[in-house]
Amino acid sequence: MVKYRKEDSTSYALGTTLVIELLKRRKERAVRLYISPKQNKDSTYETLLSLAKEAKIPVIQNNEKIFKDLSGKDNCMAICEFKKITETLEENENHVCLVNPSNLGNLGTIIRCMAGFHFLSLAIIRPACDVFDPKTVRASMGALFDVKVALYDSFEDYRKEFPNHALYPFMLQAKTPLKKANKRYPATLIMGNEATGLPRDFLNVGTPLLIPHTDFIDSLNLDNATAIALYEFAAETF
Amino acid sequence: MVKYRKEDSTSYALGTTLVIELLKRRKERAVRLYISPKQNKDSTYETLLSLAKEAKIPVIQNNEKIFKDLSGKDNCMAICEFKKITETLEENENHVCLVNPSNLGNLGTIIRCMAGFHFLSLAIIRPACDVFDPKTVRASMGALFDVKVALYDSFEDYRKEFPNHALYPFMLQAKTPLKKANKRYPATLIMGNEATGLPRDFLNVGTPLLIPHTDFIDSLNLDNATAIALYEFAAETF
Repeated sequence: MVKYRKEDSTSYALGTTLVIELLKRRKERAVRLYISPKQNKDSTYETLLSLAKEAKIPVIQNNEKIFKDLSGKDNCMAICEFKKITETLEENENHVCLVNPSNLGNLGTIIRCMAGFHFLSLAIIRPACDVFDPKTVRASMGALFDVKVALYDSFEDYRKEFPNHALYPFMLQAKTPLKKANKRYPATLIMGNEATGLPRDFLNVGTPLLIPHTDFIDSLNLDNATAIALYEFAAETF
Repeated sequence: MVKYRKEDSTSYALGTTLVIELLKRRKERAVRLYISPKQNKDSTYETLLSLAKEAKIPVIQNNEKIFKDLSGKDNCMAICEFKKITETLEENENHVCLVNPSNLGNLGTIIRCMAGFHFLSLAIIRPACDVFDPKTVRASMGALFDVKVALYDSFEDYRKEFPNHALYPFMLQAKTPLKKANKRYPATLIMGNEATGLPRDFLNVGTPLLIPHTDFIDSLNLDNATAIALYEFAAETF
């Protein structure tokens, strides 16, 4: 049985739409393409074959089992195995830094939202869930292929590499509301774990910011908070 | 086997935290409380019993099967059955109007975010997924018990009932970016279906607004877009 594991050097894009995004945007990462024996020989099929040819990867069309193993969905007609690659983030671009994210779906949604607001560099501080998990890839709707990802063992490691970034930790204990933030760029928006938020000592890092909310809730959920932060910091020149 | 169905007149809050929220905030809706035979006789147990007594509802402690049927999670120790009730929305409050929402989890997250920004009235235009589904209740983290919900068969029905609300449909085809919106209150933020957005004729409704994003993505996801809209329209007096 084929099963994705965090320690593997490759992961999988599941479903035709995602596979096409991968082959169009990051063909150098593609390793091999699986097309379901159930896929009609239609224009989508032709597109897949031609993209695989451009990417110079083998096409396997008789492996029905891998679709059951990896997707379990009847409508998954294409799977592309791809190399997991982390990159060096851009010095002059805005970053998001996620400290110990734990939810695969949230992580994908955040990446989608980052791409939407032209934040194309993501630092992840370990321990963290696996940014290359097929669930995260799917939740990102392909945006993972537009965003550079770098992993760090500690926030200090990240900070040393990018000393010129203006740091904005988002914390319930912060005093400055997001709307009053003095925004400087390149900016790093720092978000904590879904359940626990950022450790208290981030109050001493850069300019901690608060997204004010009512007492009806304990906190906004992580991807909503990140979406709001991205929206407010986005340049809006797109 | 106990199975929740959309047509039932009651639904279920699963898990101790959610059950306590329900019994504290909307005890008049509670019907009966199930406590798992595995629940320790600790202070949580005492709290549950005392809240059930206040709510004057029966407590069932020997029905292990309902936990398997409804939750399937080993750590679910309390379930509260509650009456599904729709209400009349407040004339002078801000509303969110969701047109044909289809994702149970998204819907719950949106409700949580609404409560966080003091939007306590939700209009849902059918067809729509079931706002009282246990999955939505759970995703709302109890915020569903703070938000009034009304269901409508058409947007026109909603509009007739609240002729004084300033209407803001969020659409990719809109010309006015959210940041330039002339905000009037009480406001209704109108959001479309996850996959299809709002029908084009909403361009003729109120002031259509756009959340600008890059071409890297087709759209923001619904709950992120709603979170951003709520953040921008929130009074921030909390």
